[in-house]
Amino acid sequence: MQLQKVDKNARMIKMKVNTKKLKQTKKRSKKAGLPPGTLVHVGERKEESVRITVIDYDEQSFQEKEASSIEECFQFKTTPTVTWINIDGIHRIDIIEKLGKHFELHPLILEDILNTGQRPKFEDFDKYIFIVLKMLSYDDEKQTVQAEQVSLVLGSNFVISFQESIGDVFEEVRDRLRNAKGRIRKMASDYLAYALIDAVVDNYFVILERLGESIETMEEELVAEPTEKTLQQIHLLKRTMIFLRKSVWPLRELISGLQKSESSLIKESTDVYLRDVYDHTIQIIDTIESFRDMVSGMLDIYLSSISNRMNAVMKVLTIIATIFIPLTFIAGIYGMNFKYMPELEWWWAYPVIWLIIVVIVVCMLIYFRRKKWL
Amino acid sequence: MQLQKVDKNARMIKMKVNTKKLKQTKKRSKKAGLPPGTLVHVGERKEESVRITVIDYDEQSFQEKEASSIEECFQFKTTPTVTWINIDGIHRIDIIEKLGKHFELHPLILEDILNTGQRPKFEDFDKYIFIVLKMLSYDDEKQTVQAEQVSLVLGSNFVISFQESIGDVFEEVRDRLRNAKGRIRKMASDYLAYALIDAVVDNYFVILERLGESIETMEEELVAEPTEKTLQQIHLLKRTMIFLRKSVWPLRELISGLQKSESSLIKESTDVYLRDVYDHTIQIIDTIESFRDMVSGMLDIYLSSISNRMNAVMKVLTIIATIFIPLTFIAGIYGMNFKYMPELEWWWAYPVIWLIIVVIVVCMLIYFRRKKWL
Amino acid sequence: MQLQKVDKNARMIKMKVNTKKLKQTKKRSKKAGLPPGTLVHVGERKEESVRITVIDYDEQSFQEKEASSIEECFQFKTTPTVTWINIDGIHRIDIIEKLGKHFELHPLILEDILNTGQRPKFEDFDKYIFIVLKMLSYDDEKQTVQAEQVSLVLGSNFVISFQESIGDVFEEVRDRLRNAKGRIRKMASDYLAYALIDAVVDNYFVILERLGESIETMEEELVAEPTEKTLQQIHLLKRTMIFLRKSVWPLRELISGLQKSESSLIKESTDVYLRDVYDHTIQIIDTIESFRDMVSGMLDIYLSSISNRMNAVMKVLTIIATIFIPLTFIAGIYGMNFKYMPELEWWWAYPVIWLIIVVIVVCMLIYFRRKKWL
Amino acid sequence: MQLQKVDKNARMIKMKVNTKKLKQTKKRSKKAGLPPGTLVHVGERKEESVRITVIDYDEQSFQEKEASSIEECFQFKTTPTVTWINIDGIHRIDIIEKLGKHFELHPLILEDILNTGQRPKFEDFDKYIFIVLKMLSYDDEKQTVQAEQVSLVLGSNFVISFQESIGDVFEEVRDRLRNAKGRIRKMASDYLAYALIDAVVDNYFVILERLGESIETMEEELVAEPTEKTLQQIHLLKRTMIFLRKSVWPLRELISGLQKSESSLIKESTDVYLRDVYDHTIQIIDTIESFRDMVSGMLDIYLSSISNRMNAVMKVLTIIATIFIPLTFIAGIYGMNFKYMPELEWWWAYPVIWLIIVVIVVCMLIYFRRKKWL
Amino acid sequence: MQLQKVDKNARMIKMKVNTKKLKQTKKRSKKAGLPPGTLVHVGERKEESVRITVIDYDEQSFQEKEASSIEECFQFKTTPTVTWINIDGIHRIDIIEKLGKHFELHPLILEDILNTGQRPKFEDFDKYIFIVLKMLSYDDEKQTVQAEQVSLVLGSNFVISFQESIGDVFEEVRDRLRNAKGRIRKMASDYLAYALIDAVVDNYFVILERLGESIETMEEELVAEPTEKTLQQIHLLKRTMIFLRKSVWPLRELISGLQKSESSLIKESTDVYLRDVYDHTIQIIDTIESFRDMVSGMLDIYLSSISNRMNAVMKVLTIIATIFIPLTFIAGIYGMNFKYMPELEWWWAYPVIWLIIVVIVVCMLIYFRRKKWL
Repeated sequence: MQLQKVDKNARMIKMKVNTKKLKQTKKRSKKAGLPPGTLVHVGERKEESVRITVIDYDEQSFQEKEASSIEECFQFKTTPTVTWINIDGIHRIDIIEKLGKHFELHPLILEDILNTGQRPKFEDFDKYIFIVLKMLSYDDEKQTVQAEQVSLVLGSNFVISFQESIGDVFEEVRDRLRNAKGRIRKMASDYLAYALIDAVVDNYFVILERLGESIETMEEELVAEPTEKTLQQIHLLKRTMIFLRKSVWPLRELISGLQKSESSLIKESTDVYLRDVYDHTIQIIDTIESFRDMVSGMLDIYLSSISNRMNAVMKVLTIIATIFIPLTFIAGIYGMNFKYMPELEWWWAYPVIWLIIVVIVVCMLIYFRRKKWL
Repeated sequence: MQLQKVDKNARMIKMKVNTKKLKQTKKRSKKAGLPPGTLVHVGERKEESVRITVIDYDEQSFQEKEASSIEECFQFKTTPTVTWINIDGIHRIDIIEKLGKHFELHPLILEDILNTGQRPKFEDFDKYIFIVLKMLSYDDEKQTVQAEQVSLVLGSNFVISFQESIGDVFEEVRDRLRNAKGRIRKMASDYLAYALIDAVVDNYFVILERLGESIETMEEELVAEPTEKTLQQIHLLKRTMIFLRKSVWPLRELISGLQKSESSLIKESTDVYLRDVYDHTIQIIDTIESFRDMVSGMLDIYLSSISNRMNAVMKVLTIIATIFIPLTFIAGIYGMNFKYMPELEWWWAYPVIWLIIVVIVVCMLIYFRRKKWL
Repeated sequence: MQLQKVDKNARMIKMKVNTKKLKQTKKRSKKAGLPPGTLVHVGERKEESVRITVIDYDEQSFQEKEASSIEECFQFKTTPTVTWINIDGIHRIDIIEKLGKHFELHPLILEDILNTGQRPKFEDFDKYIFIVLKMLSYDDEKQTVQAEQVSLVLGSNFVISFQESIGDVFEEVRDRLRNAKGRIRKMASDYLAYALIDAVVDNYFVILERLGESIETMEEELVAEPTEKTLQQIHLLKRTMIFLRKSVWPLRELISGLQKSESSLIKESTDVYLRDVYDHTIQIIDTIESFRDMVSGMLDIYLSSISNRMNAVMKVLTIIATIFIPLTFIAGIYGMNFKYMPELEWWWAYPVIWLIIVVIVVCMLIYFRRKKWL
Repeated sequence: MQLQKVDKNARMIKMKVNTKKLKQTKKRSKKAGLPPGTLVHVGERKEESVRITVIDYDEQSFQEKEASSIEECFQFKTTPTVTWINIDGIHRIDIIEKLGKHFELHPLILEDILNTGQRPKFEDFDKYIFIVLKMLSYDDEKQTVQAEQVSLVLGSNFVISFQESIGDVFEEVRDRLRNAKGRIRKMASDYLAYALIDAVVDNYFVILERLGESIETMEEELVAEPTEKTLQQIHLLKRTMIFLRKSVWPLRELISGLQKSESSLIKESTDVYLRDVYDHTIQIIDTIESFRDMVSGMLDIYLSSISNRMNAVMKVLTIIATIFIPLTFIAGIYGMNFKYMPELEWWWAYPVIWLIIVVIVVCMLIYFRRKKWL
Repeated sequence: MQLQKVDKNARMIKMKVNTKKLKQTKKRSKKAGLPPGTLVHVGERKEESVRITVIDYDEQSFQEKEASSIEECFQFKTTPTVTWINIDGIHRIDIIEKLGKHFELHPLILEDILNTGQRPKFEDFDKYIFIVLKMLSYDDEKQTVQAEQVSLVLGSNFVISFQESIGDVFEEVRDRLRNAKGRIRKMASDYLAYALIDAVVDNYFVILERLGESIETMEEELVAEPTEKTLQQIHLLKRTMIFLRKSVWPLRELISGLQKSESSLIKESTDVYLRDVYDHTIQIIDTIESFRDMVSGMLDIYLSSISNRMNAVMKVLTIIATIFIPLTFIAGIYGMNFKYMPELEWWWAYPVIWLIIVVIVVCMLIYFRRKKWL
């Protein structure tokens, strides 16, 4: 197996959801033609250093430490206790490779871990199960959703999790492990994997809530005063929905696949919990679909309200022109220089003209009002 | 299992269907990261007090009472008679917990009962079947549909129903139990569960009827005089349809799942009744789909009638301008101050000009009429 | 089983397809909460009196009579000959109930017969098969399609058909029975049921033909002179299509279900005939789908032709204005009262001005024509 | 079985695809209510006389003749050689009936042969397989696609083909038979049936090619100069696509059905050929779908280019008006007759006014150009 | 088997994706009616000469040479080493035919190889597996995607690949073979076939990346300055997407078919690699779907921004007209020649008129600004 290391400065994550997507495929193309199983880190290099944390527990004991080298974790492969090795930062290909060798992971798995453009999926290799998830976070400032790839390897007595960068949604799980809250310390590694998946899925509700607020704000803005910026925001929302959908739909298959899998790694007692996560996933998908419908509805409202507003402007302006053009014609008539125009001589002609003008304006206004044009 | 109680003042249910939705997901996020089975009430706290009513019956006997504490119901777990325990108000977590402990309900079930953002579904735990439904009500004033979550636990000789607040669609069922109407008193607990589901589904027809009336009214309004308010109402209707659809589609799976379930709790004699409810569900889905098509059609009509009306206005106004602009030009010609303009001297020039003007106007009007522009 | 009779005056069937729909759901809601199997007539009461006709036949014998009471039909339940009991009018609940009791029909079947908002379906109760169909008729005057529910109960030696009102599409079948045309008199009751279904389905072709003519007429109108009425008619057609679709799609399932059913009531020899009806159903569905596409296409043509026409009007009018506005400016120039305007003194100035005006108009017209604006 | 003969003059095939469709359903309705298996010719009577041709062959021998009466063909039913009986013209019901009797065809088959509104399908009657196809031809003049129904009856040693009129796509197959080209003479009747189906399917590529050319021409027209006629042609193309789709989609089922059929009539060696036709069908469907997408795209382009063009016209015209209206105002000012207007007396006032006018015009033009309005 | 050779000058590949498509079907029609298995080259003749390269290897040995005649390759059919015969250029029918004869390929396979309008597919003939792929390349200048058909024949110890022209994406695979990189030299012919498919699929990522860049550029252009050219480019992109989709969707089936195939040619050890390619395919499809959504979104933005811009222009122009028309009326009034117009005599009348004019303009401007019309 040949190793390549793509060294490049950490770049800030780009603003737009799709830009990030494009960048990913861009880097992906560097791999075209390489033998399968070649380890190349595809994705943003989010952290300079790699942090490895190990939590080892059973019902009685609990141990948590930060490993300075990957070799420290190797001892846990055979202990009867459940071990959770968490690796923040996947750009150090040598670490991933050593780990893979010791835990006998298939090269393609290692490749998938490094390639952050993966689709959520699970794969069952007799000795372990490989799971890819997308952990989402909401960037309040830019109002966009960002995804971080989380890969889990579930073995009979260990779970290894790979994250792109430090900072995750697993703090609650760690607390439960530390404080022996709930049943987590009494259960096997599959329950730990479930708990991690559950934490990721639960976090989706937080994201949806934020998006829900965005939609609500946008709706008020739409009614109050739609601008071209509103349109761009609606399109941004629409894209975020497309992005979310792409992350969540495969999740459904993933979890239902786990449920149906006949792997001995997943105990029967965990089934009911997986069913629960499955229900949550369906609920999330439902909400995303509703949001999509709402966003399309907003687009329709935006377009028709913009067009209504434009029409209103044009109507008023046209009405003004329509009123004055006949009047100007009348004025034009008596501006003619014919020698024989009897009206010009009458002394009351001028006030009568004014009268006529006023009458015409009033009649037109009444007519327009009746026709509901004003 | 750890308990948390979210104390907050009862808030009025928000006007818009989706707003309510958003609020639910909002509260849902408080649970993110908690261990599964943690009981947190997610939803509006609709009632301050919790009412527990117990109906216990068999073919001969009938007993109905309001329980002051949940412990009073525990005796019915083992009696051979059928018992229906109805709990209005799910914010008292301690009550739910005690009940769950005594009836040996799985913690995830209790969690689902408290979390009012559930999707209609059923789950088969050997000893009991858990069913979640959405009971709809129509708010006449706000012209919106509101949903209340009803959870049913069907055991071999009991049914426990959980509602968010007092007031439901089960009064008819109670009457049939009291008066031994129909076969209900002769049947087992599964028939009672069926009767409750049937009552919920039958109520959907009432909702659809109201919506049908709304649509009819709206259509007349559309033809008579479409305003921007009409557009907003159409969008509100559209959303209500999306909301209804989300509530009813899973119902279909639910009931067909119950039918196909091999649980010993559901007697074969109930199958034909479930098939009947299933047919009703399909009928409701069909009607909702028709309504959706009709609402989309209304949107099309609205948009094209608005645009037609605008066009008509612009056409008339433009025609007025078009008639007077050439006339003004003529008047302008004879307003010129050239020294040598023979027409100015002719005494019949002025009347001739008027004649010409009248002829032009008449010709243009005839032309416009012929072209059907007027 | 409790009986209720909803007494109300026969009302005329409402014009619009959907109105009828709405009315049905409206009445349906009266049943909400009643025990299943409660007999309430849901639908328009189309006829005051109920007509019961009996046709009893085998290969040799044939007997046809109008029964004055339902009891006259009871004797045919056990005769070896095939008996067709046809009941026109389903508002007399007592008749339906007596019949149901004697032929041992399930209360839910009776309920479905009375409830005219049923979806086409079939249900297999070992001793008999229950089939619901929609018999369509085309109202030439109102250009709408109306549906009448036909319920069939197929027993081993009898068929009972229930219609909402007198007048049906079965006259040809009766003729074939009377004259022993085709194979019908040699076959069992399942062939009779098939013949009735076939008559209903064949009638759909008649309806489609009428709609096809409507579409053709409408298309010519569209090209010749689209008005706002055309738009409404297109929308009416669209709705009729939605309505037809709803009636025909379930038919497909119904017939394929009959084919696949393992009921002993349906002989193998009838299979080939059912396949034939199935093919017809598919053909009808195909035609409806084509019609839908054509109607959508018409809507597009309508909208773009209206907009084209409007554009043409506006263009001509704007061009007139555009030509005269510069001319008016020229006239305005020489209408100024400056003391020192040499042109005013020149005797050939006025004719030159006219020349200039003519040249400008000609140039503009040529330019507009070249640009294809005229 | 009762025979009816619908006598009517041969009518020219109507121009539009859908008109033909309508006509078919129209005639179809004549059959409503008749017993199944009644032979009525439904369709255009395309030829006055019926032509029967017989080709009889095996690897060694080959015989081709035109039969003057249907009875001449009967002898071939039992010969070991493969016989292809081709009947051009299906309006002579007596011929079809005699043939049906002798070859023991089911009455429903005969009915389907006569009824030209069939959907492509295949039916397996143990002794023979019945296949319905649509043979398409492209009418260059009217730019429309026309369909002719081809029915095949495949027996163990014969193929009977029924066409609506003389003229087909089978000439190549006949040549191969005559000249013993390819393997056709060595193979059984199922290969002959395959060869006929293949000829029909191959002909679709010719049709698609013509449509492709139409689309290409239309696209150039669209860019060069879209007119209202273009719109109508796009809609005609759209319809042709709908029509083609309806003919080809069922073909796919048909051929995959033939492949999967366990009939002993279809030898295993023919499977690979059927798979080949199947691939062609998929390819045709793919192309039709692409064409549909392209036609929709053309509609979008048409609409936006029409609207762009209109906008361009209105913009130029409005700009002209906008430039001259302020100038006219200036001229109007100095056309006022106030006694005390000092400017009127200045001798350089008039040239200054012209200067101002020129400056205004130039400024406006520059402004408009900068704003990219010109 | 009869041979035909279509001789025609090499033509340059046409610009537009669909034009190429049309051309292909055009040529395809030449085959209509020919016996199946007739070899006719359908497609552009991309190269004058045909290049045959042979790579023969096992774990120890490696040999690469360019064959001057096809017969040189025949010896490799029976050697135990793995042989990869690559043929660039498929217009020399005689070569294909000889090869087919020696390697016992079915005539229909040869036909498919020559017919470049194939859909990606795989077919399992016991002794070999036939695979058709589309190799894409991006033409930077014309911004279009072009497809080249690659056919693979996988035998137990050989892979034959057919390409339309010289130049491919397999150079990396050749390098790995030459340098014994990765496991490729240790594996059997199925792994080689996999490696070729993988190279083709990996190349799709490169294409997607280019398209992603195009989309990004286009989006910036859309915001900065949308022109009619932008519209055409969006439509070109849309088509490219349709084209890509057509190439990739069948690939999915192809690879999942290979995975599920029970052919002994595909070793179990290759399964995990096929699963990997399958995942890539899904990822590509996902990205294409996202791109399609983005392109539709761009179309919406384009249309609404064009319409917004047009509206802005019209609004400003109309406002100018609206301001000056009333002023012109005032000037017109005092241009009238009535004898008795007291204002005309007042010496301060003229400045007052100017004052009035200024006041009117200022008021209107304020009003327009307040109404947000300016």
